[in-house]
Amino acid sequence: MKTEPSCIFCKIVAGQIPADIVHRDEQVIVFKDINPKAPVHLLIVPHEHVDSLFTVETQHDNLMAHIMRLLPTLAKQLGLDGFRTIINTGKSGGQEVFHLHVHLLGGWKNSPQLF
Amino acid sequence: MKTEPSCIFCKIVAGQIPADIVHRDEQVIVFKDINPKAPVHLLIVPHEHVDSLFTVETQHDNLMAHIMRLLPTLAKQLGLDGFRTIINTGKSGGQEVFHLHVHLLGGWKNSPQLF
Repeated sequence: MKTEPSCIFCKIVAGQIPADIVHRDEQVIVFKDINPKAPVHLLIVPHEHVDSLFTVETQHDNLMAHIMRLLPTLAKQLGLDGFRTIINTGKSGGQEVFHLHVHLLGGWKNSPQLF
Repeated sequence: MKTEPSCIFCKIVAGQIPADIVHRDEQVIVFKDINPKAPVHLLIVPHEHVDSLFTVETQHDNLMAHIMRLLPTLAKQLGLDGFRTIINTGKSGGQEVFHLHVHLLGGWKNSPQLF
């Protein structure tokens, strides 16, 4: 499995940096965003180092499908009846950490603006 | 394949309502959002009627993986070096049309705010 020694998310996956981990399985870890943008703000992070959606290939199909099904499972566990999923790809797409991660946001009192 | 006669996105898939379609394959259509929130704003929409991520099951794994790989392919075709992916799930998650769709946004002159 590919890892990047200098990657902060690889270090969290490896347990070298602490995080508030709420779920762990064979493919991903899920932890609370350290700078939350919503009452609930989780990051779904693959164990494997994948830079971004730009480097996702067919070998990651199972991983990506797993993440897409995990999102509503997590939301239901948290009692959310709705949530927003965001994936930022590339610097000009707002990506800040270049280890693929999927944002799950929710828990607003009122429905959020679309963007 | 499940369809919903009253669903606006099912009608677009069926060609009963016009849309500015930029891509079509065996699983999805992609068209320009009629009310764009960015210089590039596409919607990736499955042919099959799936209400939202809450109703995605293992039978949709291939579809979801396909969409995740299609996003960067579309972005590259459009000359984008970055983009944002958004999926709104449930009314309280900002979902407005209850046929699963994935937003692809990009083309900003400056990097967008994270949210």
